[in-house]
Amino acid sequence: MSDFFKMSGSDTDIVISTRVRLARNLAGIPFGNRLASEDAERLIAEASRPIVENPVFSERFTLKKYGKEPSGELRGLVEKHLVSKEFAASGLTRAALISEDGGISVMINEEDHIRLQAIGSGLCIEECLEAATSLDRVIEQGIGKELGGYAFDSRLGYLTCCPTNIGTGMRVSVMLHLPALAASGSDRLLSRIASRFGLAVRGFYGEGTAATGDIFQISNRVTLGYDESELAQRLKEAVNSLIREERARRKEEYEASPLAFEDRVHRSAAVLSSARLISTDEAMQLLSDYRTGVASGILKGDMDRINALLWAIQPASLGGNSAASRDANRAELLRREINYE
Amino acid sequence: MSDFFKMSGSDTDIVISTRVRLARNLAGIPFGNRLASEDAERLIAEASRPIVENPVFSERFTLKKYGKEPSGELRGLVEKHLVSKEFAASGLTRAALISEDGGISVMINEEDHIRLQAIGSGLCIEECLEAATSLDRVIEQGIGKELGGYAFDSRLGYLTCCPTNIGTGMRVSVMLHLPALAASGSDRLLSRIASRFGLAVRGFYGEGTAATGDIFQISNRVTLGYDESELAQRLKEAVNSLIREERARRKEEYEASPLAFEDRVHRSAAVLSSARLISTDEAMQLLSDYRTGVASGILKGDMDRINALLWAIQPASLGGNSAASRDANRAELLRREINYE
Repeated sequence: MSDFFKMSGSDTDIVISTRVRLARNLAGIPFGNRLASEDAERLIAEASRPIVENPVFSERFTLKKYGKEPSGELRGLVEKHLVSKEFAASGLTRAALISEDGGISVMINEEDHIRLQAIGSGLCIEECLEAATSLDRVIEQGIGKELGGYAFDSRLGYLTCCPTNIGTGMRVSVMLHLPALAASGSDRLLSRIASRFGLAVRGFYGEGTAATGDIFQISNRVTLGYDESELAQRLKEAVNSLIREERARRKEEYEASPLAFEDRVHRSAAVLSSARLISTDEAMQLLSDYRTGVASGILKGDMDRINALLWAIQPASLGGNSAASRDANRAELLRREINYE
Repeated sequence: MSDFFKMSGSDTDIVISTRVRLARNLAGIPFGNRLASEDAERLIAEASRPIVENPVFSERFTLKKYGKEPSGELRGLVEKHLVSKEFAASGLTRAALISEDGGISVMINEEDHIRLQAIGSGLCIEECLEAATSLDRVIEQGIGKELGGYAFDSRLGYLTCCPTNIGTGMRVSVMLHLPALAASGSDRLLSRIASRFGLAVRGFYGEGTAATGDIFQISNRVTLGYDESELAQRLKEAVNSLIREERARRKEEYEASPLAFEDRVHRSAAVLSSARLISTDEAMQLLSDYRTGVASGILKGDMDRINALLWAIQPASLGGNSAASRDANRAELLRREINYE
C-alpha cells in the first residue's frame, strides 16, 4: 500500500493527489453506442498491443478484460480512482491496463475508445501530464495504420464521444484536503474560485457527492480553445490560491485555540488507532482530522500512508460479506496502519 | 492518589466504595440551631481532644477549623465525600478531623454535634462499621463527663437532630458502578430492590442528582428498630443482588456483540489518554466505560486509580480559574493517570 502513487508532488499538507486523464478515439472505428462487439474486441487488441508487446511496459502493466458480470474487483478499482464508475458499470466488452504501482491506467472501451490517466501524490500536474502524454504517444504510434490513427480535427483538436471533452481531451483533476475551509462553510469561496478559473468542484466520490472527509476534487471544465499546458497552468493557479486560503484558515483556527485544535487531532488519532468497529463516514472524518494533525506537525505520521488509507477503507477495497464485518475489517486495518502513541 | 481509600473490599468490578457514617450528639449541649457560638467552640475542643491528644491518632489525623468564608478546599473535601455539602455550606464555627489516607473523617458541628465516617474501596461494610464504631468509642470515652456523654435514649437509641437518624445514627452507603443496568434503563429494578429492602438510591453527587458515570449510591433509609449489624446485613443483601444483576447484564451485553463492547471500552480508554480538553460529564462517562473495560479484563488498569480519578476530575479537586482551564487540567491529569496502549 505504501507506494500507491508513483509520482510524488508538492504541498502534501493540502494536496492529496493529482490526476491527468486523456480521452482518445480511433478514426476508423465507430464511437460510443455505435461500437459493434467485434470492434470492441479489435480495439482492445490494437490499443493494448503497443504496451503489451513493449518489453519495458509489458512487465509493468497488467491487462484485464471485463464482460457483463458485475465484479467486486472493478468496484475496488473505481474506489482507487483507477477506472471510472462508467467503465465499471458498462456491459460492453472492455479492458483496463494498469501499471503495477497504480500510477498509470488505460481504459479501453469506456465512453471513449481510450482513456488513459496518470495519477501522483501531492501537487504534480506537470509530471502527470508528461507521463500521460508519453504513454499516449506510445499507444498512438503502435496502433495499426489501417485504423486511421487518432480521430483529430485540425480546428477542434481530438474528437471525443461527449462534446465536453473535445479539443485536448484532457481532464486535470486535483484532490484537495480542505478541512479549515470546509469548517468555516466556505463553499462559496470554492465556487467563486472555480467559476473564475472555469473549473468544476466535486466531492471525494466524484460528481454530485458531498465532500466526505473534507476532500474536494477540482478539475478543468474547458477542454477546447487552449492547449494542454495553458489549461494545466490555469488549474494550478486556482489550486495555489486554495492552498494559500486553507493554510491561512488552519493557522487562524490553531491560533484561536491551540488546545482545542490539538484536542481534536489527538482524539482522532486515538480513536482511529483503537476502535474495533468503524463506519466509512466516521473513518473519513477522523482521517481528515488526523491528516490535519500530521500536516501541522502536531502528530507524527506518513502522508502517503494516510492518503492510501482514504481508498483502502472504502467498502469495496475491504471486501467482506456484510457492513458489520467491513466495519471490523476497517477498524483492524486502521489500527495496523496508524501508529499513535 | 493511589491510596485514597484505606480499607479495601471485595467485588471491585462493580462496587466503588463503601461508607459508614455515625451521627452523635452530646446530652449536655443544645442541638442544631439552638447551639450557641461558645458551645460550638467547646464542642470542637471536646470532641477532637480524644483524637488530638491520643499519641497514635494524633499523627494520623489533621484537625482543621472552618468559619463563615467559603473555601475551595471545603468544596474539594465535599467532592471526595470526606465532608458533607451541609458541612461545607454551614456558616457555623466547625471543624473536621481527617485521617491522612482519607479513610476516616469526623465532622464537628455539622447537622449533628459529631458525624464520623469510615470509607473504603470495594464492598467492605463490616470493616467500615468496625472502624467507625472503634473511633466512636474512643471519642465517647474521651469527652469530658460534665457534658453528660452521648445523648442516648434507652428505648429510641442515639438521639439526633433530624428524626430520620434517630436510633443507630448510622447510615451505610455503597457506591455502585452499574453501566449495564443503566444502559438497559433499569431504574425500575433499582427502585424495586431499594423499596423491598427499605433503601434509598441516589446519584454520584448525592441526593436528587442523576447517575453521572452510571454510578449509584445505595443506603439504608431506616435507622431505628434494628441494630447496626442487622441494618448492614440488609443493605449487603440488596447490594449483592444488584451485583449479580449487573454481572449478568454485562455478560449478556458482551455476548450480544463482543466487538461492539470492546469497541466502546477501547475508544473510551483512547480518548481519556489522548484528549487535551475534556468536560467533567464526558470524562465521567468515558471513565465509566473504561472501568467496565478493566473490570471485564479487556483493558489493563488499576481500579483504585480509576476510583480515585472519579473524585480527582471534579471541578473543585482540579482548581483553576475557569471551566476551560479546568478542562485542560482534567485532560492532563487523565493522560498522566491512564496508561492505555
